[in-house]
Formats: sequence, structure tokens, C-alpha cells
Amino acid sequence: MINVGVAGYGYWGPNLARAVSESGCARVEMIADRDSTARGRAAQRHPAARLSDDILEMIADPKVDAVMIATPVASHFSLAMAAIQAGKHVLVEKPMADTPQRAAQLVEAAARKGVILMVDHTFIYTGAVQKISELMHSGELGKMYYYDSTRVNLGIFQRDVDVIWDLAVHDIAILDHLLGASPIAVSASAAACIKGSPANMAHLSIYYDDGVMAYLNVNWLAPVKIRQTVIGGSQRMVIYDDMQTSEKVKVYDRGAAPGSDPYEPLVSYRLGDMRAPALSSKEALVTEVQEFARCIDTKATPLTDGVGGLRVVELLAAATLSTTRRGFPVELGQKREAS
Amino acid sequence: MINVGVAGYGYWGPNLARAVSESGCARVEMIADRDSTARGRAAQRHPAARLSDDILEMIADPKVDAVMIATPVASHFSLAMAAIQAGKHVLVEKPMADTPQRAAQLVEAAARKGVILMVDHTFIYTGAVQKISELMHSGELGKMYYYDSTRVNLGIFQRDVDVIWDLAVHDIAILDHLLGASPIAVSASAAACIKGSPANMAHLSIYYDDGVMAYLNVNWLAPVKIRQTVIGGSQRMVIYDDMQTSEKVKVYDRGAAPGSDPYEPLVSYRLGDMRAPALSSKEALVTEVQEFARCIDTKATPLTDGVGGLRVVELLAAATLSTTRRGFPVELGQKREAS
Amino acid sequence: MINVGVAGYGYWGPNLARAVSESGCARVEMIADRDSTARGRAAQRHPAARLSDDILEMIADPKVDAVMIATPVASHFSLAMAAIQAGKHVLVEKPMADTPQRAAQLVEAAARKGVILMVDHTFIYTGAVQKISELMHSGELGKMYYYDSTRVNLGIFQRDVDVIWDLAVHDIAILDHLLGASPIAVSASAAACIKGSPANMAHLSIYYDDGVMAYLNVNWLAPVKIRQTVIGGSQRMVIYDDMQTSEKVKVYDRGAAPGSDPYEPLVSYRLGDMRAPALSSKEALVTEVQEFARCIDTKATPLTDGVGGLRVVELLAAATLSTTRRGFPVELGQKREAS
Amino acid sequence: MINVGVAGYGYWGPNLARAVSESGCARVEMIADRDSTARGRAAQRHPAARLSDDILEMIADPKVDAVMIATPVASHFSLAMAAIQAGKHVLVEKPMADTPQRAAQLVEAAARKGVILMVDHTFIYTGAVQKISELMHSGELGKMYYYDSTRVNLGIFQRDVDVIWDLAVHDIAILDHLLGASPIAVSASAAACIKGSPANMAHLSIYYDDGVMAYLNVNWLAPVKIRQTVIGGSQRMVIYDDMQTSEKVKVYDRGAAPGSDPYEPLVSYRLGDMRAPALSSKEALVTEVQEFARCIDTKATPLTDGVGGLRVVELLAAATLSTTRRGFPVELGQKREAS
Repeated sequence: MINVGVAGYGYWGPNLARAVSESGCARVEMIADRDSTARGRAAQRHPAARLSDDILEMIADPKVDAVMIATPVASHFSLAMAAIQAGKHVLVEKPMADTPQRAAQLVEAAARKGVILMVDHTFIYTGAVQKISELMHSGELGKMYYYDSTRVNLGIFQRDVDVIWDLAVHDIAILDHLLGASPIAVSASAAACIKGSPANMAHLSIYYDDGVMAYLNVNWLAPVKIRQTVIGGSQRMVIYDDMQTSEKVKVYDRGAAPGSDPYEPLVSYRLGDMRAPALSSKEALVTEVQEFARCIDTKATPLTDGVGGLRVVELLAAATLSTTRRGFPVELGQKREAS
Repeated sequence: MINVGVAGYGYWGPNLARAVSESGCARVEMIADRDSTARGRAAQRHPAARLSDDILEMIADPKVDAVMIATPVASHFSLAMAAIQAGKHVLVEKPMADTPQRAAQLVEAAARKGVILMVDHTFIYTGAVQKISELMHSGELGKMYYYDSTRVNLGIFQRDVDVIWDLAVHDIAILDHLLGASPIAVSASAAACIKGSPANMAHLSIYYDDGVMAYLNVNWLAPVKIRQTVIGGSQRMVIYDDMQTSEKVKVYDRGAAPGSDPYEPLVSYRLGDMRAPALSSKEALVTEVQEFARCIDTKATPLTDGVGGLRVVELLAAATLSTTRRGFPVELGQKREAS
Repeated sequence: MINVGVAGYGYWGPNLARAVSESGCARVEMIADRDSTARGRAAQRHPAARLSDDILEMIADPKVDAVMIATPVASHFSLAMAAIQAGKHVLVEKPMADTPQRAAQLVEAAARKGVILMVDHTFIYTGAVQKISELMHSGELGKMYYYDSTRVNLGIFQRDVDVIWDLAVHDIAILDHLLGASPIAVSASAAACIKGSPANMAHLSIYYDDGVMAYLNVNWLAPVKIRQTVIGGSQRMVIYDDMQTSEKVKVYDRGAAPGSDPYEPLVSYRLGDMRAPALSSKEALVTEVQEFARCIDTKATPLTDGVGGLRVVELLAAATLSTTRRGFPVELGQKREAS
Repeated sequence: MINVGVAGYGYWGPNLARAVSESGCARVEMIADRDSTARGRAAQRHPAARLSDDILEMIADPKVDAVMIATPVASHFSLAMAAIQAGKHVLVEKPMADTPQRAAQLVEAAARKGVILMVDHTFIYTGAVQKISELMHSGELGKMYYYDSTRVNLGIFQRDVDVIWDLAVHDIAILDHLLGASPIAVSASAAACIKGSPANMAHLSIYYDDGVMAYLNVNWLAPVKIRQTVIGGSQRMVIYDDMQTSEKVKVYDRGAAPGSDPYEPLVSYRLGDMRAPALSSKEALVTEVQEFARCIDTKATPLTDGVGGLRVVELLAAATLSTTRRGFPVELGQKREAS
């Protein structure tokens, strides 16, 4: 049983605390938040947990084995570093840090201290992404051609991050998990439509080796919520629509191939069945907490470890740089291999 | 009654000829196609039309007032130029020509000869685009923020043009019509997934003055057909889904505005009604033929004239250039005003 | 502040208790359930509430002002009657009782004792049904033609009631609210597909005065969940799709009218705009608890009072009778007026 | 090559004539219609066909081998009978005749004369219904539980038949094809909302042996077009949505079974994959014409023969009778076996 301290009980912290309670392998030992109203809510839902108004005090508490950080992005680095230095295992909210340099420092510090550093890229633990990963790694999709995602909705404008760091981060983490390869360049555009607020829409084109492309379309200012990803493979194609209550993942036995005869059309098409596989309905966050506990117990590397979190932040930073120059392509020099 | 000669009776020519027949203001005088099977089909459907295996012969025919060109893109320039030189009015299939230089030469020649030069940007004549244009020009949408379009399907891979010149051309023509302003830069990426075939997927980010952005996502290799455009305005937002049999255009009374109080959220949201206006069900191509005839009769400038067609080709060429350099932004120097 | 005792903490009781907590005008004084696991869950979520393993004891408790009954249908009558006799106000889960006779006895007893008797027909308090009611009563829909509802899904097979008493009850309550008139006859069919379980699918045709018809299609054994109601009026038509996350209610300005000219078609059609009005997002159950408290305070008649609940049960019983005779129409003699 | 005479060139006749032309095994020899405008259209599209203003003259023409009857329902019997008596094969529009007696007379006459009598139940020849039939007959769906169809739209009000004879006829023909068994009773309701027009909405509950049920919901006065059929089987369930451009047929590996343990829930559920099989895209009407030609050539019994057409009319007549008595069940005495 891992004793967890939850840092920040605003929007996401309550979800983490609840998932810890339901995980069966961890318990909420402490919850820390500066805001007394937040602590009041925490007291009601987790009567057995100790409360604190000081996250650093909680980090220092000897009964706390692991810290989950759900505070604003700007504070991720200092709190995660403090926890690592105190020898605590860390699960940090996405994005892991606000710069690649800080993310790299966390990775190094965790390695030195021998603690688990995991990033809360929740989507990786959903039944949908697990199924897509399985389809891809079993070869069922064939050679990967592209990943094309639309993730738009109305609100919520964040104060501390723009839409790339808030929404595109999800797709970048999924790509990191699915492709197991680092991108070589990114071209991105972004715009802020509402005066005084960060960029609320962005498009990213990410270049991988071997011609693979990823396209991300994120927007806080769309009239309806769309969560749709199209994945093109040489053998099959996938549509992952997270707004569907059932049939979230559809696998199409469709494709095109070079025509074999010069007198025939350039390409020939295949139009086979569509299949929507049954997906695990287990809550992603509970699976994630169990993965965290498993890695603490066995010293294994988490599925969404700090190294992957760093790769995600590197891409976020490169995309942001590209947006300042109207899509000027930014190369991603450090070709780290995916774990 | 305008006597029309239809050049090319392959995929699109039959639609033009049928629309001429149904227009009530023009008639199919001649149809020319090198292919005897195509002429056979033409004879069956247009028994009163004369046939020819030589488009230039048809262009020279004194009974032909106007020529509609539905041949491969590479031949648009020479055939349109021949028709203009022969003093014939011209309706040319999109894209108008394969280079901006050639498109510009056609515009100049038509002006010199005093003939109508019109480009078949059919979408401009649909009830849906007409309604969106009306919403935009009446001020109902408020200040334009963005135009974000997805136009993907499985096939048909073209031999002579890539997906930008085949599919993105539609959105670029719509943008030219809606915005009445020229873009200032474009960043684009593209990829060819099938060996030996042209680029089958592309993403374009188009920069306009005043922060307006357009995003185009086109793909010949998607498992299903999607035709969805989201248009964001400061007062209202539109979703135009051309795959719907009804309710193609939905107008959302939704938006965000800067919060007025520093202690409140950064932006405030508005969530009002959605309205799907009734659209004209008149066939776009018939409306277009009538516009062509009207302009021939009255020497008016067509809604989709050669100057607009040239602007579209300039942007296509700039986007293509950008794709060769991983999204490097290409500036569009000549700021021609939309008519 | 009304002190509420919640009877039964199985599937629905927790929702009632939560809604009481959130209502701002009532508090959970006691929760009673025979099952110790259920009481354990109740203790965790409502630490301030007293617990009991005996509902009758809770009913007798002097600190309890009102009782909410969320037990199996067979026990509704005896528990509600006990509460009424004890002078407690009662909110009883739907259906109100298992026979019209028992429902009528509850109505009479409550009137005699001067306590509020309300039935938990939750849908009446949703933003969607409130909006439809508003459209109907404002005359916007014109003369009512029909109400046609499909309410199907996979599971949950109930032990104590069949699909008519479990699902059709919702539509019958909505009809009672919308039409304010009693049906004159019902014809129904039903079938039990799974050996040893109650009827899992049924179709009801309900006849009203003036030719108005209601059709209900309910099924526990459908592959997907459908909650779709079409309402036809002479001026406008409504589609209410409860599975949509937005645009649940769509109002169509469409219709048909007798042709005015014998040489013209029999009927002429109207195809106007569609509008999806913004709906209140307030939780229905909280609104319902507030209505209960308001009626207790002011001795007003609840929107879903016992008399309406009785009309619903009368129709359920008549439909069940019809199903035993292959749709033989059962007349509904007692034409009570809707309040 | 069968020489076909097409009787009636109004709404459906042109489709039949076109399908004959495209079938490769029949040709349009004559087209007869009293209306000169209709003959004008026929002349344009079928320049090689002879025209007549007298259907009986066409029937008598020695060059005509087979007659296709696409006239108003009231004339089906007399024209089909004339053709049979003249020794011509007959394909008659649905419904085959306006009474079961007349339908039976046609069946007997055709048998006596040794000509093919086929009914144009087009849906049977669609890729979708063929696939469903295949799924059912291969046992993949398991034991049939129910067929539940919604077939509604706005218009077109027919002059000569009501909505049961116009729309429900399609589902009854599909049921006849899929079940291969005759219904034992029907209960139906109907209503006419527009003064002076036939019934525009109806619901039918059809009882088969072994507890199988069919439910049909048809309406000419719905705001949108819905064509959705749910088929429940013990092993799998199907949703057939004819408004989808792709994935018209979805097969769900879902179901329920009696629980095996008295302490467990009454039924247990299965939630497996969904599969949308690729469907033949061949036009149904062309397949139907080919079936007609095949049966003429080989004296085989058509898939949709007169006997099946008679069973359909018997059910239509029984349903109509039931509607006059508020759903009073009408038994179907003659239990003919499906061919």
C-alpha cells in the first residue's frame, strides 16, 4: 500500500485522490492545498486523509511515500524537484514542466535518487489508446502513414498555458507512446483570438522519419466539442472518436496501393469491413495509479516515465517556437530513442 | 440562348453539359472529346449536340459562343487561350491553370479580347456557401477569427495534380469568396504515401491580415469521407458539414469574450441557441451556368471570375512551394484586392 | 431546511441523497437500508446522516420531516402509506405503486393527512422536457399530432418490474405533463425473449381525444442505447434526443397542410429552419428536490403529484392488460383531468 | 435479351426503364403512358423505344415479351391480369394489388398461363438486405427475437394509398424474405393528421410463431428522414440504417442470457465487437431486372414472386382492418409457407 500525498486540490487533484482511493494499492495519506475551500472539499471526500496548507510540508512528511502534483504548470518543476530530493516517488501532471531544460533536470534528479518519476499522460491508459497501440504493434495497421487529430471545444481558456501546452500535449503523448520514435521537425501556427488571453488555437505538422506525418488541430474556441483522430496505415485505418459513448475506435479494412498495370488507374482501392472492437471500460486514471504503484514496488520503468514526458515537452517547446515564425520548421536535434 | 461547346466529356464534362441543358438560358451546341467512347456517351445523352474529336475545331466553330473546358489541368491554359483568341467566352474547370503566370496570361488575354473568363469554382454557387456568405456579410458572425476545414476521403488519386490542387482548391476558392481579402502567407506540409503517386495528404495554414487564420486539411487516403468546416466569428460560429443530407449549415450563438474583472476567469463564455437555416436546394452547377450566361449577356463580372481564379492559383503555388521546405512560410507579395 | 429520510440506498437512493445535499433547502437526516454494505457506502458519503437498518424506524423518527422512498416497486405502497400515516411528506420512486388501486389509496391518504405526496418522475424536471413543455404551451408547435418515442438499450433487466413499468413509465409521465389530458385507450404488445425474465420489449399505442396519438417503443435488449422522441405538431416538429451531449432538443419549422387547389398535390410542405434552443443545465434531481421542499413549505401541489402518478399507473396497468391479449384495445374509463 | 414494355412513365417507371437498359439482359421495347409530357421524357432518354399512349395496346404488342407495371395501385390488378392473359411475363410495382383477393387471382392466372409473375419489392435486392439475410440464414444472429423498424420522413403524401400501403409494405416484404414464415396476427393503429388525406402515420405489431415480434413505425409527417431497423437475435443484433452513406449494416456481438446462479443477476450481458460488413454496391433495381430475366429464361421462381407478393398484401389488408378498431388483433388464418 503506497501512501500518497496529493499536491493541489483544485480541478484535477480530486480526480487523482479518488483514483488513489479506488486503486486498491495506494491510499491518500495527505492532501495539501493553500486554499481553505479546497481543503474543505478534500476533508469531506477523504475524511481519513491528513490536510495541509503547505505542499512542501507534505513533501517532507515521513509517512508520505509518493507525491502527486496537480498544481499550475509553472510550479511543477520546483515541487517535483523538492519531492525527488526528499526521496519521494513523483507523479506529475502534464505537461511535466514548462521548459525542456527543467524537464531534463527532473529526469536526471530522479535517476540519481532512484525514485520513480512518472507523468500523468492519462490518455495512454484509456481502453481506446491501449487498443490502438495493440493494433499498431501487432502489425494489423501495416506501415504507419499518418496521425491526424482534431481536439477542439469551447473553453476552458487556461491562464498559465496556451492551447498547445493544454490540449496538443495529449496527442503528443499518444504519439510518443504509439510511434516509439522521435519526430525530426515541427511546423506550427497559432493565434490568440481573445485579447489578453493566450493562444487559443493552433495547428501542428510533425515530421517523422520515413515520411510519417502527424497533424494536430487544437482549439479552445470551437462551437462544439470534437475529439477525433484518424490514423492511416498501409493495411488498415482507424478512427478514434472520443465523443462517442460506444464504438470509440473503428478499424477500417480500407486502403490504396499502387496499381500494377500502367494502363490501369494509378492506385487501386480496397473497401472491406469496418470493425469496432470492444474496449476495456476500466477507468484510465485507476489503471495509471496502479502502474505507478507497480513501478514503485518493482522499480520498473513506467509506461509514461519522465523520459517520455521530457520528449513531449521538447516537442511542445519546438512547436511554440515555430508559431512565432509562421510555421518556420523547427528541427528536433536530440534524437532520443523512445523507451 | 448561349450556344456552348463542351471540351472534354470524361468525369466532369457530362455534368457541365447536363447543367447547360437544364439552365434554360444556354444549349449544348457541340461536345468535343478525343475518346470515341466518351463521344458515344455524349451522343446518347445529348442527341441534338454536334460531336467532334478535335477540341480546337470546336473552338473555331462559328456557331459556338462559349467554351466550357473540362480537360486535364495541364491543358487548361492552351485550350482556354485558344478559345479567348477565337473570341469565345470561357468557363474553365478548377484549377484555372497550372501556374500563376499562365493564369495571369489568361486574365490579361480575356480582358484584351473583351470576353468573359469564368472559373468553375462550383462550391461558391451552393446554397450552403451562399448562406454562409450572407451570414458573414450581414455581420451576424461578427469579426472573423478562423476558417478550419477538413476535406478527406478514400480516393480518387488524380494523375495530373496532387491533393492540394485537387481538394484544397475548393476551400481556397471559398475563402477567396468569403473573405474578400488576400492572404499574406502560407505554411504547408504534404506527403505522398503511395509510391509513384502525387502527394495525397496536406495541411495548409494560411495567414491573413488582422490575425485571421485558415486551416485546410485535405487527404485522399482517409477511411471515410469527411467534409466539415468550422468557422469562428466573434459573435457566432458556423459548422458546415457537407455530408449531411439536411442541416448542412449550423449557426451557433456561442463565443467567448475577455472577462471584465481581474478576479474572474480570463474569459467569459456565451452558450446560446443553435440554428440550422433552410438552404436553397437549387443545383449549384445550374446556378453557375446561369451566372455565366448572365455575364455574357450583360458584360458583368462573374462571381468567380478569372481574377479570383488567379488568386486561387497563386495560393496553390505558394502552398506547394512551402511543402517542399517543411512548412517554411511563403509570403504572398502581390496583395490584389478581391473584386 | 427540510429533514429528509432516505429509504433504500441501492441504485437510486444515493442519487436522491446527493441531490438533497446539493439542493440548499433540505438535508439528509437519516438513511435506512437493510443491507450493511449499502449503509457503509451511505456513511462514507453522508457522514452527518444517521443510519438505520429499519425503514419503519426511520419513518417513525420525529426528526424526519419527509421520506424519500427508493426501494423495490412492490414495497412502495406499504412504505409510502406508513410514512403518510406518520404525517410525513413523501417522495416516492416511479412507478408510484404496483396497482392503480394502491396508487389511489396513497392519494386519498395523503389528502386526508394533509401531507405532500410527490412522485419522482425525474424527466419532468430536465431542461429538455421543460423546454418542450414551454414550446407546446406557448402554441409554437401548433396543434399536437403525435408523440413517438424510442427508449431502448442493453439491460438492465429488472427483477420486479417489466420493461413497460421500468421504461415506458418515463414517457407516460412526460405525456401526462405535456398533454394535460387523459388517454382514452391503449393497445400494447410485449414479449419476453430471455427465459425466466419479465417482458423486455413492448410497443404501446395510446389514443387521445381529437386524434392525438402516442407511440412508445421500449426495449432492454437492443444493441445500442437510443433515447429519441419525435413530436409532431401542426406548426413545428421536435426531435428530442437525450443521447446527444448538446442539441438535445431540435425544433423544426416543417410541416404539411392540405393543398388549396384540386389540381395541385394533396398536401403542400413547408421546410424552414431548424433551431436547437439552449437548455438549462441544472440537474433535474436537484430541481425536483427543490420543488418538493417548496411544496412542503407552501402547501402547493407538486408538478408531479400523486394524482398524476396515479394516472401514470392506470395507464401502465391498462397497457399490461392489453399485452396479454395481443394488442386488444383497453379503454381508460376514468377520465380524470390533469391538474 | 428480354423485350420489355414499361407501363407508366411517371415517378417509378423511369427507374425501371433505366435499370432494364443497364441490366445487359433486357431491353426497353416499348413505353406506354397516357400523358404526353411523360412520353416526351421517355423519348429523350430511350430514343430506341417505341412509345404508346395506350398500355393495353402495348400489352398486346407481339414484340413485347414482358411487361413492367408502374401505374397507380388501383390499376395494378387489371393491367397485370391483361398482361398475364396475353401470355406476357409481369413485374408489378408494390403493392402487387389493392386487395388480397385480386392478388390471389393474379397468382392463379399466372400459374395457369405459365408466365413469371414477380413483384417489385426492390429492397430485397439491396446489398444491405442481402447481407442481413445471409447473416440470418448462416445462423450468425442465432434465434430471431424481433425486427423493429422506423421508416419516417416528410412527405410524399400519396393520393391512392395510405402510409401502410406505401411505406410499411417495404418492411413487410423484407420480413417475408427474412423470416420465411407467415405471421399469425397483427395489431395496428393509424391516424390521418392532415384533413382530406389518407392515414399518414401507423404502427404495426406483428406476431409470429415462437414469440417472434415485428414492429413497424411508418410516418409521412416526420421532420427528418429516418430509415432504421433494429434486429434482435440471441447471438447477435443488427442495426440497419439506410440513411448512412457507408456502414449501413452494423452487426453487434451483444446479447443477454439467463443468469446461471440464483444469487446473481437475472440475466448476464455480453458486450463484444461491432462489425460493419462491406456491402455490394450494385444497384438493387438492376439486380432485380436480372432476376426477372433469369426466371423468364429458366422458368425459375423469382425471389419476390407473386405468392410472396400476395402474403404481403394479406398482411397489409389485415393491418388496415386492425387500424379501424384501435389495434384489435386480426388473425392471419391462411398460414401459407414462404417459398
